Amino acid sequence: MMLGKMAVQGDAFYSLNTQDIKYIKNGLFCIDEKGFISAVYEKQDKAYDVVRESYLKEGKLKILSASEVMIPGFVDLHMHAPQWPQAGTALDKPLETWLQEYTFPLEAKYKDLDFANMVYEDVVRTTLSYGTTTALYFATVDREPSTLLAKICGRLGQRGLVGKVVMDDIVGNPEFYRDASLEKAISETEKFVQEVLEIQDTYKQKVYPVITPRFIPSCTDNCLEALGKLVQKYNVHVQTHCSESDWEHGFVKQKHGMNDAQSLNRFGLLTDKTVLAHATFLDDADVKLLAEKQTSIAHCPLSNVYFANSVLPFREFSEKGVNIGVATDISGGYSPSMYHAIRQAVISSRMLNDGVNSALTQEQRGRNHSAITLNHAFYAATVGGGIALNLPVGKLEKSYAFDVQMIDLHKNMPLFYAEKKEEDLFHKILLLSESQNIKEVWVQGNRVK
Amino acid sequence: MMLGKMAVQGDAFYSLNTQDIKYIKNGLFCIDEKGFISAVYEKQDKAYDVVRESYLKEGKLKILSASEVMIPGFVDLHMHAPQWPQAGTALDKPLETWLQEYTFPLEAKYKDLDFANMVYEDVVRTTLSYGTTTALYFATVDREPSTLLAKICGRLGQRGLVGKVVMDDIVGNPEFYRDASLEKAISETEKFVQEVLEIQDTYKQKVYPVITPRFIPSCTDNCLEALGKLVQKYNVHVQTHCSESDWEHGFVKQKHGMNDAQSLNRFGLLTDKTVLAHATFLDDADVKLLAEKQTSIAHCPLSNVYFANSVLPFREFSEKGVNIGVATDISGGYSPSMYHAIRQAVISSRMLNDGVNSALTQEQRGRNHSAITLNHAFYAATVGGGIALNLPVGKLEKSYAFDVQMIDLHKNMPLFYAEKKEEDLFHKILLLSESQNIKEVWVQGNRVK
Repeated sequence: MMLGKMAVQGDAFYSLNTQDIKYIKNGLFCIDEKGFISAVYEKQDKAYDVVRESYLKEGKLKILSASEVMIPGFVDLHMHAPQWPQAGTALDKPLETWLQEYTFPLEAKYKDLDFANMVYEDVVRTTLSYGTTTALYFATVDREPSTLLAKICGRLGQRGLVGKVVMDDIVGNPEFYRDASLEKAISETEKFVQEVLEIQDTYKQKVYPVITPRFIPSCTDNCLEALGKLVQKYNVHVQTHCSESDWEHGFVKQKHGMNDAQSLNRFGLLTDKTVLAHATFLDDADVKLLAEKQTSIAHCPLSNVYFANSVLPFREFSEKGVNIGVATDISGGYSPSMYHAIRQAVISSRMLNDGVNSALTQEQRGRNHSAITLNHAFYAATVGGGIALNLPVGKLEKSYAFDVQMIDLHKNMPLFYAEKKEEDLFHKILLLSESQNIKEVWVQGNRVK
Repeated sequence: MMLGKMAVQGDAFYSLNTQDIKYIKNGLFCIDEKGFISAVYEKQDKAYDVVRESYLKEGKLKILSASEVMIPGFVDLHMHAPQWPQAGTALDKPLETWLQEYTFPLEAKYKDLDFANMVYEDVVRTTLSYGTTTALYFATVDREPSTLLAKICGRLGQRGLVGKVVMDDIVGNPEFYRDASLEKAISETEKFVQEVLEIQDTYKQKVYPVITPRFIPSCTDNCLEALGKLVQKYNVHVQTHCSESDWEHGFVKQKHGMNDAQSLNRFGLLTDKTVLAHATFLDDADVKLLAEKQTSIAHCPLSNVYFANSVLPFREFSEKGVNIGVATDISGGYSPSMYHAIRQAVISSRMLNDGVNSALTQEQRGRNHSAITLNHAFYAATVGGGIALNLPVGKLEKSYAFDVQMIDLHKNMPLFYAEKKEEDLFHKILLLSESQNIKEVWVQGNRVK
């Protein structure tokens, strides 16, 4: 028998679809040399015992204890890595203060590569420790620290997708923090893409460059057009903010005479590897367009509370065929934990469903048929993220990358009372885990925590 | 100089009022033999050095390290201790399933005192480890395990206020889980009150009995009336659920022809030591009544998402003179952490302010002037809780109990970037801490974690 790199024996949960969770009791997960799952055996499979014995004999079998469970690593679909130092601060301030006094001055500091190195190492170590195995990052406007972030992801073992942020409009951006010119914005972006593509295969789990216009209000039309051409030339990922708030949505409507999604599409920026953060104000035509283009939404439930003025109609958009992933959106969202993002996705959907204002009647208050299940939020944070990025991650099945969190059940969780079903245990993991419950994290078959 | 039991030297934060946080740098907190703060000295105070020297010489000075900060312990104003085993489960189920298949059968199990002992020890240890120094608990309908919970709080050092739950109505409650009769409900409650009063002073931090009708729909009118008399006779605390959801609010209106608050008042159940959980559907007259009676609300922001169909208008009720505390409401709320409750209080208030449904105009969507600050939520979780219970807890000032969490800043928190103000650090503590950040917990001058 040809053995792979190793096998892991233990219990596991993952999403079969938006509603159903697969529970494998004492499964055998075989991992090949490249870090992909080559086979999964369940107890009742004929070959289980002989395969298990083979790995065991070769010293290639890792056996989880009875108090451990595996779930897939999370895909954080939107995070501003440079904003990590200010996570949890200034959220009571108005947006203008938050941007001008906190965010932009902080992002400008990353020109200092020592500072960038120090913070970005902490970002990647922290998110890995919270179980985020794949992350789609906004870096800053400066190229060098952005490439550095990709390298740090690579070295520390995280599947990082990184964008040098583009913001060339002299009206929409402060003088101390923007691209020097349209030409510079494009040449630096192209150089960034080339630099990251060059090192992409250096790392087993790979890293990826992402074309990243901050959002329409910060870019000139010429710039967006040129970025669209780069997307076509290099066939790389795209990320931006889209229809986030009353202000932003209204601004684009006034400037371009159409919604963000339609406008981004004109510039060739809506692909099946594009991720749009927020997207709370999409109208029916926008939703249809995203579904057609197979463009995904990064749902940022926590930062939406602070800056989006409303809740993403997650269930409605999902049922209309748009793929949705979940994101922490540091530091508009204060928490680096995808567990919190998952919980908040459910919470926000229920509040949209029931409404919030008790002075209104039940009928006026909410938006019916909007609540999502915890299983659906988990699906989005794993499988949805994988679909969004066109990457084989999010499930524990053959041909998927072995990206796994090993959960220690013997902390923070009340387990002395028999759970009625496996699903009860799964929900406890999602709702009660803290970072200390995440005992080990594996990316592409390598242990990284 | 007469020294007390000990002094603690270190940095501290606490609420001066609903908006302002007092920061003391390297303060000296003197604690008397009974566990109260006898004096607080700041660096600039004349006596600081001599007092410090005196405690130091006597070996009675504890000095916090530079990476530690003190904040007051939390007051959890509403928690169902017996529901802890099912925390984080079945929240996608309809209320009826949640009650009949999960909650009531679980609560009925506490007749088994071994089971009760096992779970309740875990509840008290867990909540203490999350920084909850005072807790107002619903126990179960059975007297003996309820008294046991009070004893466990006492022994483990938590300031526990415990209620034997009253639910005597044969219509509103399942046969396997309710008071055997009206008479039994009252006699068992009175016996429970006496039992807890008897052991009250056994523990330095004390424990307290609480008159606890589950809510109006589960009690007969005769029962509520008799409970009101017990309140008068023993001058003890009261807790119940109030105007929680569309269903419950409507039920009481139909049954009694008035809102919960008005009805509870008829029975003498609204005092300045009464705590009403939820209270999301109060009308103006209810709010006025609560302010007059100095009756407090236990705001349960997380469980309200699941079972209350709307958000408590926290800011409005607070500005109209009603005192509000914060609660986890295990297991309608899944988390035992008051940090999560504080965060959700802010989140829910912002969602009430901005509204949730992007299909409506900005004007139709929200309820203006509803957002609360993080400082306000913290105030409610500490000082507000103390006021609700008429207990000297929640501040780090002279005559308050020394109830403190000592926070380790060297975990989970990005501190390499200089915070602009002390408040930034304080907000990071509130928004990013996990239980492992809570290094020590002290109640009434005793270390309990």
